[in-house]
Amino acid sequence: MYKVKIYVTLKNSVIDPQGSAAKQTLETMGYKEIEELRIGKYIEITIDESVKNVDEMVNEFCHKLLVNPVVENYRYEIEAGVKQ
Amino acid sequence: MYKVKIYVTLKNSVIDPQGSAAKQTLETMGYKEIEELRIGKYIEITIDESVKNVDEMVNEFCHKLLVNPVVENYRYEIEAGVKQ
Repeated sequence: MYKVKIYVTLKNSVIDPQGSAAKQTLETMGYKEIEELRIGKYIEITIDESVKNVDEMVNEFCHKLLVNPVVENYRYEIEAGVKQ
Repeated sequence: MYKVKIYVTLKNSVIDPQGSAAKQTLETMGYKEIEELRIGKYIEITIDESVKNVDEMVNEFCHKLLVNPVVENYRYEIEAGVKQ
């Protein structure tokens, strides 16, 4: 099986309200050393080994559903030969 | 500066409605080879280099705010000497 790990992050130009709120909360707890905090999505997908072009499939998943290209970037890693 | 990457995932025993919905949608698009799809959080934090024990700080962030230990697991990586 293939194990795919996708990291979806907001583009730098995009405001991250969730990340800002978490940063602010940690600062009120006394953590003043945080320069920046951004929250994105981490997606793990297990794909059957019969698939010939996993790269192509993963990019289609991202373009069709998992990533909003207007505000998000993504990168991914593919691990082959994974036991279930 | 330190760049910290935190991967927060739902525990295997926990149902992932968001992941299931995405898997189902992709299946209706014709992608039948997906065994499993799980969605978690990917958090990037930039921390000032003055901090002595980054490991300790990151674990405190997770325990106090960023991770729900009842249903989530987390792992992290720390990169030192990162330019802003």
